[in-house]
Amino acid sequence: MGFDYVKKVRICEVGLRDGLQNEKTILTTDQKVELLRDMIDAGLKVIEVGSFVHPVKVPQMANTDEVVKVLKEEVPADVELRAFIPNLRGVDRAIACGCTKVKLNVSASKGHNLANLNRLPSETVAGFGECVEKAHANGIDISGSISMAFGSPWDDEIPIDDVKEIVEAYIKTGVTEISLSDASGMAYPSQVYDICTEMKKSYPEVKWWLHFHNTRGLAIANIIAGMQAGFSQFDASFAGVGGCPFVPNAAGNVATEDVLHALDEMGVETGVDVDKVIAIGRKVTGMLGHTADSYILKAGKSADLKLELPKGQIANQTAKK
Amino acid sequence: MGFDYVKKVRICEVGLRDGLQNEKTILTTDQKVELLRDMIDAGLKVIEVGSFVHPVKVPQMANTDEVVKVLKEEVPADVELRAFIPNLRGVDRAIACGCTKVKLNVSASKGHNLANLNRLPSETVAGFGECVEKAHANGIDISGSISMAFGSPWDDEIPIDDVKEIVEAYIKTGVTEISLSDASGMAYPSQVYDICTEMKKSYPEVKWWLHFHNTRGLAIANIIAGMQAGFSQFDASFAGVGGCPFVPNAAGNVATEDVLHALDEMGVETGVDVDKVIAIGRKVTGMLGHTADSYILKAGKSADLKLELPKGQIANQTAKK
Repeated sequence: MGFDYVKKVRICEVGLRDGLQNEKTILTTDQKVELLRDMIDAGLKVIEVGSFVHPVKVPQMANTDEVVKVLKEEVPADVELRAFIPNLRGVDRAIACGCTKVKLNVSASKGHNLANLNRLPSETVAGFGECVEKAHANGIDISGSISMAFGSPWDDEIPIDDVKEIVEAYIKTGVTEISLSDASGMAYPSQVYDICTEMKKSYPEVKWWLHFHNTRGLAIANIIAGMQAGFSQFDASFAGVGGCPFVPNAAGNVATEDVLHALDEMGVETGVDVDKVIAIGRKVTGMLGHTADSYILKAGKSADLKLELPKGQIANQTAKK
Repeated sequence: MGFDYVKKVRICEVGLRDGLQNEKTILTTDQKVELLRDMIDAGLKVIEVGSFVHPVKVPQMANTDEVVKVLKEEVPADVELRAFIPNLRGVDRAIACGCTKVKLNVSASKGHNLANLNRLPSETVAGFGECVEKAHANGIDISGSISMAFGSPWDDEIPIDDVKEIVEAYIKTGVTEISLSDASGMAYPSQVYDICTEMKKSYPEVKWWLHFHNTRGLAIANIIAGMQAGFSQFDASFAGVGGCPFVPNAAGNVATEDVLHALDEMGVETGVDVDKVIAIGRKVTGMLGHTADSYILKAGKSADLKLELPKGQIANQTAKK
């Protein structure tokens, strides 16, 4: 037995995309820009800024182009602003607004992908070739995510070989930065460890991300299991905003401040200031008019819980060594 | 690196004690007896039934003796009903009502213990000798817990040597079943692993329990870290009822159904039927008139999330291997 884990981690703040995309309140460009400036100031180096999807279908993301335009001149060289894209039109919008990093997605559920797109997941990924080419031709980094990588509401299980098929399809199209995603909150730690270990061994050239939802309370345990398998890049959403796409009122994205607090306690280097992230969480819940599933916004950091000893105490010194 | 953990775990359901002790609604003897019968039926083998504390100070626990009296004839031989006691008076009440298992507690915070009791924690434990003797003389199992074992709101840190001092004092008084408790929700996984590993190595004769609160979202990660260190007994509370004693509205006890769901997913044997525990959680929140911090009561088990594929789908068969 042992308890080894990576000691340096990168967090991608996905609140502006996965957090906000189902919110009733639509944040303005100014509000998003303000939050992005706060994130950069907090030390976040990877930020998912929005999606280039149809503005009528997802009005919450309609100002993504504008947000990137306003900010791009002031973004430090070591900060990546990433946008989600569904197709080639997304690459075009990225080019037009100056976004230098985009992310595609495919579902690992064969049944779901066939029902939605009439293609196997690996065929969908093969079809991304045009996006990858155009992105690369225009100096845009392109990464891919695999949703339902740990389980799916449409399948009894997702065989790891199905996920590997998709990974191989991504690699074949030229994508080597890949996110394994669990938006249905079905992943569990021993499974995460096993899958991550297998993926790392099989595809050492891939830069991996993990995206966990806390739907069943296991997101941080899953992140730690991933870290025990040597994974070091994780998504999280400010204040835990985002909700569950499948079960109304269930918890969704794991809160960035909860993850950072845990990592800080465990001595893991993230380069991010948790207090500033907590402040962002409070600002976001103010903008949205509701709280979400964040522990640290409710309880505060462990280090900040300081109580006075009851009166009539014995001289405090004797209590200390 | 590796991901080994114990594959058989015992859960102590502490909802009737730690869950209810701060609730506004006081459950009747009949209600508690009903819940206890449900728990036994669900396969729970260790149940904390209440406290023998002053009925005016903690009216929620005043009917503990009565509950034990009503139930004791029907409790199967392999089920332990345990009650919390603060002192010798608690042993007397256990004897009088026929409770065969009691648990003492001491705070690992020297400052807190000195301020409250004018004694060092190890001195408090030494003072438990009389309780232990009387319990043993009357065929009552007696165990001890150590609160603030992982951190305390009154101290910058709790040195592990302070906790070991208390463990040794317990062993000296004849108590070898010991619970390490984190009611302030400050424990974190790497620390849990380190402390548990050290305790197991130093005191192999002790039967350990761990008691985590989910105040900062780490209870299940901590349980898994404990399991990775070879610990196999954990407290949890139905529906996550209990709250945080230090921060109003923060999360408290980890929910029994959340723990069981995670353990089931990880292939850990518990002997407990999670569906029956979920039903208990729903019944309890009905009795109390409010929900608490349970993920599974909101989201359901992973295995129960089954969605229909969108219409117009391709024949489902092609999706399956």
